[in-house]
Amino acid sequence: MTDMPGPKPGRARGDAGVTTAAAIARLAGVSVPTVSRVLNGKAGVALATRERVEAVIREHGYRRPETEAPAAIVELVFHALESLWALEIIRGVERVARVNELAVVLTEMEGRLTPGRAWTEQVLARRPAGVIAVFSELTVAQQSKLASRGIPLVVLDPTGEPMHETPSVGAANWSGGLSATRHLIELGHRRIAMINGPVVWPCCRARLGGYRAALEMAGIPVDPALVRDSTLYVEGGLKDAAALLALPEPPTAVFTANDLQAHGVYEAARRAGVRIPQDLSVVGFDDLPFSQWAGPPMTTVRQPLEEMGAAAAELMLALGRGEQPRFTRLELATELIVRQSTAPPRTA
Amino acid sequence: MTDMPGPKPGRARGDAGVTTAAAIARLAGVSVPTVSRVLNGKAGVALATRERVEAVIREHGYRRPETEAPAAIVELVFHALESLWALEIIRGVERVARVNELAVVLTEMEGRLTPGRAWTEQVLARRPAGVIAVFSELTVAQQSKLASRGIPLVVLDPTGEPMHETPSVGAANWSGGLSATRHLIELGHRRIAMINGPVVWPCCRARLGGYRAALEMAGIPVDPALVRDSTLYVEGGLKDAAALLALPEPPTAVFTANDLQAHGVYEAARRAGVRIPQDLSVVGFDDLPFSQWAGPPMTTVRQPLEEMGAAAAELMLALGRGEQPRFTRLELATELIVRQSTAPPRTA
Repeated sequence: MTDMPGPKPGRARGDAGVTTAAAIARLAGVSVPTVSRVLNGKAGVALATRERVEAVIREHGYRRPETEAPAAIVELVFHALESLWALEIIRGVERVARVNELAVVLTEMEGRLTPGRAWTEQVLARRPAGVIAVFSELTVAQQSKLASRGIPLVVLDPTGEPMHETPSVGAANWSGGLSATRHLIELGHRRIAMINGPVVWPCCRARLGGYRAALEMAGIPVDPALVRDSTLYVEGGLKDAAALLALPEPPTAVFTANDLQAHGVYEAARRAGVRIPQDLSVVGFDDLPFSQWAGPPMTTVRQPLEEMGAAAAELMLALGRGEQPRFTRLELATELIVRQSTAPPRTA
Repeated sequence: MTDMPGPKPGRARGDAGVTTAAAIARLAGVSVPTVSRVLNGKAGVALATRERVEAVIREHGYRRPETEAPAAIVELVFHALESLWALEIIRGVERVARVNELAVVLTEMEGRLTPGRAWTEQVLARRPAGVIAVFSELTVAQQSKLASRGIPLVVLDPTGEPMHETPSVGAANWSGGLSATRHLIELGHRRIAMINGPVVWPCCRARLGGYRAALEMAGIPVDPALVRDSTLYVEGGLKDAAALLALPEPPTAVFTANDLQAHGVYEAARRAGVRIPQDLSVVGFDDLPFSQWAGPPMTTVRQPLEEMGAAAAELMLALGRGEQPRFTRLELATELIVRQSTAPPRTA
């Protein structure tokens, strides 16, 4: 929050309306901050108070500066909407927005990680209560523009180091990788592969870290041939699982960095005549609504995506109210969900 | 379109008649601020007064001052975001909105079919360029409020008859049901079941109609025991497929009203030890991104959901420009995608 100066970090306003706001406050018998909240379309003012303030405003013809008043809008920006988990996050943000009477403006960046200039200008013009960026990177200039307008920014599952000072929400990725791999070790597996996503992304690096830690704690050497950098899509899992299954000594279990990849492993196994879980155990990551219906139902690490969306929205609102949250990095717990895609290895 | 009078159906700005809030106030016998509150969807106006003002607006139209031009916003309202196909539609709307520099405001109604009063008032206050309602019903009063403000409404896949005069976009459901069932007949199946959704929804009724037509054209009697009304979820497909498989003479093929149900059929087959497609052929409806990765990859009727979202947005924009589209009901073609969940019956 170092980039939001002054005593009211989320709301660095000019003095233009202060006199008038003070007069309204006096006439309505409320505090100036309460008037500001009504003026800025914020929640958290009792209905009767809000109506009293609005009545005074109507009567005395107050006009706030059009260029500075935030709208009752939350901007939700996605790197891409192609991943099915996007919907879970949207629902979480929607839930909090609804309670706070905020509209959710959804932007998809067509797979680009950084929104373009047009997006920034449109956002500034819309004067949102805040911005939630999912799996996206805003440039320093973009962050600075938002900060100077008092528009709080929260990042969900940040992809890069430059964002690390921005308030953010993620999942306990390392712990998830650890519990997935430990589950396979406990079943008796020793040749455990990991199909990872791009390690430039901290979430992928953390999942890999958990995988490695579990192996090392069990005294199992990490075999570099069994760790593959892939893409976080079904196609990536399919391609890399096919390569793993073609090894002279193929793995008996695979942990993937997300469920989509795990579904790709399912398909590779079908094509190779390899049965899950009899011949190959598979653990995914995310617990997409769909994975419980895969054939067989998938063992996976549940990422609380909806809760993460809700937490990001709550954090953004707190920042917008000028609060200083105790934590500006939240990691929600992941949970191993054991279904039917994991079993002891045949040779165990 | 009968509720949108005048030569510019989507944008009844009342060029000829009353154009100002003052004139409306005079006709309705209320103050100008009261008219403003009604126009902007604010609370605090007695119901009878509100209705009188609404009646005047309906009759005479209302032209917004330039400062109240519609915001660069499209409202996209979902009955529920739990269905995976929501994402496809969102992407289509996003694509058109992006080109037109419009922000997409997404609202989920938590499973209710009709948005509440708060939603309507918030929408009126946001002054969007238009509203797209997905699988949702707006009340006549809500439709009328939008129309009187010149806010065009387009419905995607309407669920009920009362909406039939509203411009809408759907898929060729009947043709889809026909081609799915015909495909199974051509493979040699005779005992073909259908797991349908609630037939109160025209889309489900149309898919059932296509199924029946294909059977009748092939001279195969429709067996009522093989047609089941279910819910459009995995659980519905699972439950009803289990019931079908437990029949003294079970079907050799199942056509479902959506892919989620078909995934439920997969699970029911797995539990019953029934192999797909060797023992049971399955055809879904939608072609969710996921269904190509099911085990086995699913034969299904592709519904062009993204294109439907884009078409709804285009139609809404045309109405907003005051154009009179040649068609106010668009049905985009469905396409049978044959994968590996269908095969000739064993006994054929």
